[in-house]
Amino acid sequence: MNVANVVNDLVGYENLKIVQNTEYFNFSLESVLLPRFCEIKKGNLKIMDLCTGNAPIPLILSTLTSSNIIGVEIQKEIYDLAVKSVGINNLQDRISLINMDARNIASEFNTDSFDLITCNPPYFKYVESSNINDNSVKSIARHEISITLEDIIKIGRKLLKNNGSLVIVHRTDRLSEIIKLMEDNNLAPKRMRFIYPKTGENSNLVLIDARKNGNVGLKVLPPLICHNEDGSYTEEVLNMFER
Amino acid sequence: MNVANVVNDLVGYENLKIVQNTEYFNFSLESVLLPRFCEIKKGNLKIMDLCTGNAPIPLILSTLTSSNIIGVEIQKEIYDLAVKSVGINNLQDRISLINMDARNIASEFNTDSFDLITCNPPYFKYVESSNINDNSVKSIARHEISITLEDIIKIGRKLLKNNGSLVIVHRTDRLSEIIKLMEDNNLAPKRMRFIYPKTGENSNLVLIDARKNGNVGLKVLPPLICHNEDGSYTEEVLNMFER
Repeated sequence: MNVANVVNDLVGYENLKIVQNTEYFNFSLESVLLPRFCEIKKGNLKIMDLCTGNAPIPLILSTLTSSNIIGVEIQKEIYDLAVKSVGINNLQDRISLINMDARNIASEFNTDSFDLITCNPPYFKYVESSNINDNSVKSIARHEISITLEDIIKIGRKLLKNNGSLVIVHRTDRLSEIIKLMEDNNLAPKRMRFIYPKTGENSNLVLIDARKNGNVGLKVLPPLICHNEDGSYTEEVLNMFER
Repeated sequence: MNVANVVNDLVGYENLKIVQNTEYFNFSLESVLLPRFCEIKKGNLKIMDLCTGNAPIPLILSTLTSSNIIGVEIQKEIYDLAVKSVGINNLQDRISLINMDARNIASEFNTDSFDLITCNPPYFKYVESSNINDNSVKSIARHEISITLEDIIKIGRKLLKNNGSLVIVHRTDRLSEIIKLMEDNNLAPKRMRFIYPKTGENSNLVLIDARKNGNVGLKVLPPLICHNEDGSYTEEVLNMFER
């Protein structure tokens, strides 16, 4: 494939640049909503972002914590964009990138060692009949071809410290499955926030913070409405873009 | 106990009266939100309301369907109020009341025979240390003393037809447990709506419609905000009171 990479401002972040390739991705609002949803403790944390793509989540997390962040991306083409993004922002000392199948990542680190694992995973189940995009780079990012929800939850179960957080964003229509998988893997959903495209519409996405071996009791935070009637971002979303 | 029963208008329903005893209950908004949340098909349905109390849910359902409704209440004192409420509205032909432990109800009816089972159950787990109200009638209505969430879900699993609905309202902080119990009992949560006391506050209650042997895929409907800043009901809630 012969498509030029483009250096953009990371939308709404004046001091962050991101290297994009519109053939692969468009900017996704979830990349901003997810790090903003995390409860980030003070101190030196161990943080990992799975399915990191061109690293928007590590870039934004780097503005919210002084801890180092590890990003894991399986696809070489996308990993290369992430490396460029991190370099262009001079964040090589803060963000380490690994080009690896995340399913093998658990054996590379100590169990019970991470405080926070984030992931904006592929949203769609992969079945033979899946209407798969011709562009395989895009397909792997959108469909559970290289990694499934269960894989991600099992990585969290293994690598997180006691009470460490797995924070994901996912499609609301898969909520029952997500909760059941988390509960079966000793990750207790503790905070949730439903995302609605507009007032009066059903939720399309949900942010979930699950704690390893956490106790019962879940908080569902106020709804997050993304767009006004005219399609512009709501004030709350715009405020998330400010540093 | 020697407390006079009071006949009230069922709040917001001009043509419905309800017999209350403020020693036992106050009017609960859930009694209106739950029947309004149900998707009620046309035709002659078999409908049952568990933990029916003084029968507010059957009374409101009777305005939304022409089908008959069965209400089940374990506590004799409360059942007596329900009988009076139904009588005073001349709905004896539409609403049948049963004074029985709901845990035994499944053996009284054919399996796979109901279209809709509703329940506004006791919200709190009962443990030795539970801070139980001295008034035992109230305690049984609020705490899982005589029936648990799992009992209710198992009744739904047994009595509902294929794709029949179990519709409950429950505390949001128990959502994970509710979903896991439903999934383990072949009830697929298909529609959910989170209830928020006010804008900007966390959800306290959730409405759930689970379908027996339903397929995957969940809709989370727009948030339901109950009160304005000044404590008055929001327009959406007020509209639910109109017939």
